[in-house]
Amino acid sequence: MENNVASTKVCFGIDVGGTTIKVGLFDELGTMIDKWQVPTNRNENGRYILNDLSEFILNVIKDKKISDEDILGIGLGIPGPVRDDGIVIGCVNLGWGIFNAANVLTELTGLKVIVNNDANIAALGEQWQGGGKGFKSTVFITLGTGVGGGIIIDDHILTGSNGAAGEIGHMTVNFEETESCNCGKKGCLEQYASATGIVRLAKKYLSQNSDSTLLNNEKLNARIIFDHAKAGDKLAIDVVKRACSYLGVALTHVAAVVDPEAFVIGGGVSNAGSILIDYTKEEYENNVMQALRNKDFKLAILGNDAGIYGAAKMVVG
Amino acid sequence: MENNVASTKVCFGIDVGGTTIKVGLFDELGTMIDKWQVPTNRNENGRYILNDLSEFILNVIKDKKISDEDILGIGLGIPGPVRDDGIVIGCVNLGWGIFNAANVLTELTGLKVIVNNDANIAALGEQWQGGGKGFKSTVFITLGTGVGGGIIIDDHILTGSNGAAGEIGHMTVNFEETESCNCGKKGCLEQYASATGIVRLAKKYLSQNSDSTLLNNEKLNARIIFDHAKAGDKLAIDVVKRACSYLGVALTHVAAVVDPEAFVIGGGVSNAGSILIDYTKEEYENNVMQALRNKDFKLAILGNDAGIYGAAKMVVG
Repeated sequence: MENNVASTKVCFGIDVGGTTIKVGLFDELGTMIDKWQVPTNRNENGRYILNDLSEFILNVIKDKKISDEDILGIGLGIPGPVRDDGIVIGCVNLGWGIFNAANVLTELTGLKVIVNNDANIAALGEQWQGGGKGFKSTVFITLGTGVGGGIIIDDHILTGSNGAAGEIGHMTVNFEETESCNCGKKGCLEQYASATGIVRLAKKYLSQNSDSTLLNNEKLNARIIFDHAKAGDKLAIDVVKRACSYLGVALTHVAAVVDPEAFVIGGGVSNAGSILIDYTKEEYENNVMQALRNKDFKLAILGNDAGIYGAAKMVVG
Repeated sequence: MENNVASTKVCFGIDVGGTTIKVGLFDELGTMIDKWQVPTNRNENGRYILNDLSEFILNVIKDKKISDEDILGIGLGIPGPVRDDGIVIGCVNLGWGIFNAANVLTELTGLKVIVNNDANIAALGEQWQGGGKGFKSTVFITLGTGVGGGIIIDDHILTGSNGAAGEIGHMTVNFEETESCNCGKKGCLEQYASATGIVRLAKKYLSQNSDSTLLNNEKLNARIIFDHAKAGDKLAIDVVKRACSYLGVALTHVAAVVDPEAFVIGGGVSNAGSILIDYTKEEYENNVMQALRNKDFKLAILGNDAGIYGAAKMVVG
């Protein structure tokens, strides 16, 4: 292993989550050389996280005998808003307040560090080596417990003035909604198109509908709902169509702002596959202006590694 | 006049409209040195437009004795979608099809040419020397006969993969609308917040409402409606609030995508002034997620010159 990283420049792509930190070592062409997981130490407001990371990275460099001039730097993704200058604007999951995470990790390692939000680095990773490969401008939507997003323009992350660009999950798509989203607003996309949102929709449909269905309230998750929809269960299809319809409409708004080449859909819900893409694209095409029609809709393919790929790409440039 | 352009680099900012072409000569710091208007010759599908322009510019250069090395180039705005590579994707108002307008005008003049859409160059102009001055990332919305938009990120226009970024006017804001927009869709922002949209709303309110009002169907335009709203006419206020409410909501969608520092509102309707800003900002703040609150809302100040300023700025870089 020592020798096969010597021929080209390398960089680290890091994705800090609430429980584990993913670390990847990449060459500058986007090949993953190695990857590791480190537990996230959230004690004392996460003050040990960057120290732990620094120690881990310096050990890898030593173990693999990588010389300093071959290291392009470290890309770091964290679960919260980050400004272009590296300033983290608070990160509840890690216990972090407002500080310049890039500067701190540079001081600890002596390496160049670029920091961005976890959804944004996943977006960049999917465009570099995943579902968006070959495009220069994509919008990535991650449908998991929540709904996140990332906007890539000409191979670069659009960060936004307060690190909040691509917050597609909290776009209001239903002004009639009476229940509140986690963010405090009502009618956010996340309330319909996240894994929890789809279950919420299904429960609502079940309580209001007397149609025969194989879905039941006790055993409901997004996967089961999609599986029943694929098998032809009418109520499950209605739920999936409704979720995709809000997603498709939200993407028409996104397109009117940035006019991307393609949309890339990831996160656990995207395991549903083509049914998700087909219904979403149909709703998109029915509601978008002519100049924005016929966009590509792709499934993400890097799964949980998207973040470390994108973090590395930030450093490769 | 010959001598005061010799000390610094200069460039041309051009805004091609359906009836007249505005030409401005600027120094690289953004001061307008001179400006002219040339009629738009739309004969034979607008084939003479770029030739006329080239002749006019070369004459100005000769008359003002500007030496070649002092000219940064020409920025050109046209009323249709343009890709980053200078390719115009059809322009109905001029009769143009699909071709590379930048290359043609470079061949004619020997100068560097950068082309973009007229709403986009107005956005850049307002950020450079107008209502958005001092910001690096703004979203410009022009409320005129239609509703246009332009997105500026880090002092550069966001063009989009098909030149359709910033097409905010055709974002769907009302899924219950039964009348069609000019674009063929239903419920576009333009149907409510343009000058014609506001009049359309007022006529609808007048036909459905028996409240006493000073508005009457025979004599209605956006200015009259705003004037009556400012004077306290309840129906006029309802109309203005409704228009601003759709605009405010559309801007929450825009913010969730690009997270700008500020919004700049221009076009004829913006002459209404603070009443427009106040109602729009109120609706925006009530409907946007926390991380995107407290944006600046500014009125455009360059009027019809915004386009030539922005066209010049594209060349200054």
